[in-house]
Amino acid sequence: MRAVDIIIKKRDHGELSREEIDFFVQGFTKGNIPDYQVSSWAMAVLLNGMTDQETTNLTLSMAHSGDILDLSSAVDLVVDKHSTGGVGDKTTLAVAPMVRACGLSVGKMSGRGLGFSGGTLDKMESIPGYRVDLSEDEFLKQLKELGLVLSGQSGDLAPADGKLYALRDVTGTVPSIPLIASSVMSKKIAAGAQAIVLDVKTGVGAFMRNLKDARYLAGLMVSIGELSGRKVIALISDMNQPLGFAVGNAVELREAIETLHGGGPADFREHCLVVSSHMLVLGKKAASMEEGRKMVEAAVAKGTAYEYFRKMVIAQGGDVTYVDQPEKLPTAKYIETVPAPRGGYLKGIHAQKIGNAAVELGAGRAKKGDPVDHAVGFEVIHKVGEKLAEGEPLFVVHANDPEKLAVAREQLLAAHTWSDEPCDPLPLFYDVIE
Amino acid sequence: MRAVDIIIKKRDHGELSREEIDFFVQGFTKGNIPDYQVSSWAMAVLLNGMTDQETTNLTLSMAHSGDILDLSSAVDLVVDKHSTGGVGDKTTLAVAPMVRACGLSVGKMSGRGLGFSGGTLDKMESIPGYRVDLSEDEFLKQLKELGLVLSGQSGDLAPADGKLYALRDVTGTVPSIPLIASSVMSKKIAAGAQAIVLDVKTGVGAFMRNLKDARYLAGLMVSIGELSGRKVIALISDMNQPLGFAVGNAVELREAIETLHGGGPADFREHCLVVSSHMLVLGKKAASMEEGRKMVEAAVAKGTAYEYFRKMVIAQGGDVTYVDQPEKLPTAKYIETVPAPRGGYLKGIHAQKIGNAAVELGAGRAKKGDPVDHAVGFEVIHKVGEKLAEGEPLFVVHANDPEKLAVAREQLLAAHTWSDEPCDPLPLFYDVIE
Repeated sequence: MRAVDIIIKKRDHGELSREEIDFFVQGFTKGNIPDYQVSSWAMAVLLNGMTDQETTNLTLSMAHSGDILDLSSAVDLVVDKHSTGGVGDKTTLAVAPMVRACGLSVGKMSGRGLGFSGGTLDKMESIPGYRVDLSEDEFLKQLKELGLVLSGQSGDLAPADGKLYALRDVTGTVPSIPLIASSVMSKKIAAGAQAIVLDVKTGVGAFMRNLKDARYLAGLMVSIGELSGRKVIALISDMNQPLGFAVGNAVELREAIETLHGGGPADFREHCLVVSSHMLVLGKKAASMEEGRKMVEAAVAKGTAYEYFRKMVIAQGGDVTYVDQPEKLPTAKYIETVPAPRGGYLKGIHAQKIGNAAVELGAGRAKKGDPVDHAVGFEVIHKVGEKLAEGEPLFVVHANDPEKLAVAREQLLAAHTWSDEPCDPLPLFYDVIE
Repeated sequence: MRAVDIIIKKRDHGELSREEIDFFVQGFTKGNIPDYQVSSWAMAVLLNGMTDQETTNLTLSMAHSGDILDLSSAVDLVVDKHSTGGVGDKTTLAVAPMVRACGLSVGKMSGRGLGFSGGTLDKMESIPGYRVDLSEDEFLKQLKELGLVLSGQSGDLAPADGKLYALRDVTGTVPSIPLIASSVMSKKIAAGAQAIVLDVKTGVGAFMRNLKDARYLAGLMVSIGELSGRKVIALISDMNQPLGFAVGNAVELREAIETLHGGGPADFREHCLVVSSHMLVLGKKAASMEEGRKMVEAAVAKGTAYEYFRKMVIAQGGDVTYVDQPEKLPTAKYIETVPAPRGGYLKGIHAQKIGNAAVELGAGRAKKGDPVDHAVGFEVIHKVGEKLAEGEPLFVVHANDPEKLAVAREQLLAAHTWSDEPCDPLPLFYDVIE
């Protein structure tokens, strides 16, 4: 078998066999197939597509390119969650302890932010001492003892995906739905998930700009899950405007803590309730979505969800006083509330523009490895469809530099669009695919 | 400007600007743009195409990536020729001295064979001592003094094309008409040609399998020539069956010498007359094709064409006794005439199967750098449409190994297909594009 023949087959719209995909994935994992062949193949995949069977084979081949975590020694059933990424998406921070408080263990490996999309690890690192670099043994021990872990990737999981992803980033081959689906699912399978709730974001602040692509990606991932013996459901949720109010690191963590206390923005709270309920149903802790919702509401009301968050922070070396007194978390030098420049109905709050403004402000990273400033960010305190009067507070900027503050103020003003006529609010969810 | 943005633009069906193409070509020539970006771009070009303007800009950018030969110190006007490659295509060997004998200088840089397609340099190296590695100074000196040179590429001509070509070969990005056109034309422009006769082959033994692709490639190269201030015409000629009888190195050289003496297969002789006449018209030595043909026929009849071939061999260090007594040229140990296994009309003589059989026999190379055996090859002595009786000589195999001979015999038998009904002969030419 020759790598070039596999490239040619895909170039000419052929369907690659399981053996061909294994050969190619093993070849590039071991370094026998050079990057220049991998990138030309990736472009052919992006432009010519893959069948569901090819994508499933690619996923399994990448999942098996390294270690497969076996969580069965620690817990009976692990339900994972994954969001395709967006602006203000701090869901994992709240949902993981909520679900744990309802009796379902959560051992989740999260990622860092890149571009307009934030990352769970960066947000958690706003807490001094909090470790996201647990070893596999530490991860399993904490999962077994506490039933709740939120860390970075440990072990050599899906190294093929890591290599391919790095290459895609610099060769214009990121937005391929089969490649995105196999990247997400290979990591989840390698991380030992038996059931997964996927949150596929769609809108101007998501990688899937339109609902059609989001549905295709969601359906593909559900189908891969099925074909590989995992139970997967996919929610399709809105990412035209930010989720919740806070966009940044410490500001998002504060909002997640408020939500665990029963507060927080209504849209974010509702989003967490829905995601948690799906996880509980999938994890056989609740018989229905309604039952799941009641369990989560009770866990928040009783304070057990918040208590699990605290325990997790302590277990991972974080200073829990920062959780108990969130005002201690990194705070920006300049906090400015910007008033609405006009009255009217909010027609759009462009999530990607806000995500990009957060990167420029220092809250996110333009490229891998860049540092982030945990203190800075925004509170975008309104939602599409709301009616405002001129001069009412529109958003809050948290900045450490007056020049960056000025730039961010203008960018956020430009991200808000207005109408004189009433506008419909945006839905939270578009669909559930299972 | 970033290479990844140029890849993304082409991936998304955009038209690259002159500046973007220059940036990309200069980047990969200097090694600033890594191979994995070049190959993903090449796949996007192959699958999404390029406009004529983009292809012209790519050609000029690659032509100017190294030296541009200035032949004006040596001769007034240089007319180059180029064949897109095929089986039994020894045209340059005969045409270059024919045209020179009619008063038009020819300074041609040729290539080696690869895959089923033979190469002029390999054929000329059947003559002991013949040098194909002239320096630029030697090339120019011989062009000035003799007006006839047949050598390999000298100097650092179109290094971008060399790099890109090597990469295309291993990344499945060879059969892109814009990339083929710019590869051919960038080398020709860098080699100093002011006018060019292109011989675009079409058929089962050519890179352009069908007439539509051949016409597109021909038209594109003529258009590039025009846009870059060169006069270019393109002939579209048949490559379903081999050109002439001989396929190999010494066997093809012998056939070219016979043709310079006024003999040789009728199809090959006619092909040479047409190509030569076009060169003479383009080089302003003949007012019409008819006049050109008469001049060439006279040069062959008087022996001046052959005499120029001899002088060139001497000038380039070759032992001319091998030209005067072609029986001295490398001769295979086994020469077997294979009879027709049946009577009937020849329906097809599959040029590519014959080209591939020649590679296996040792006459060609499967990959760059492989050695070639100058002695071995075939004489395929009939043409499509001819009627044969069973047992009549069908072809001759020249081999140095009895096992390879047996394999080649079967391969050549399989390359000949038969009909009980009369079959039309194949045309020599399909079109002339100017």
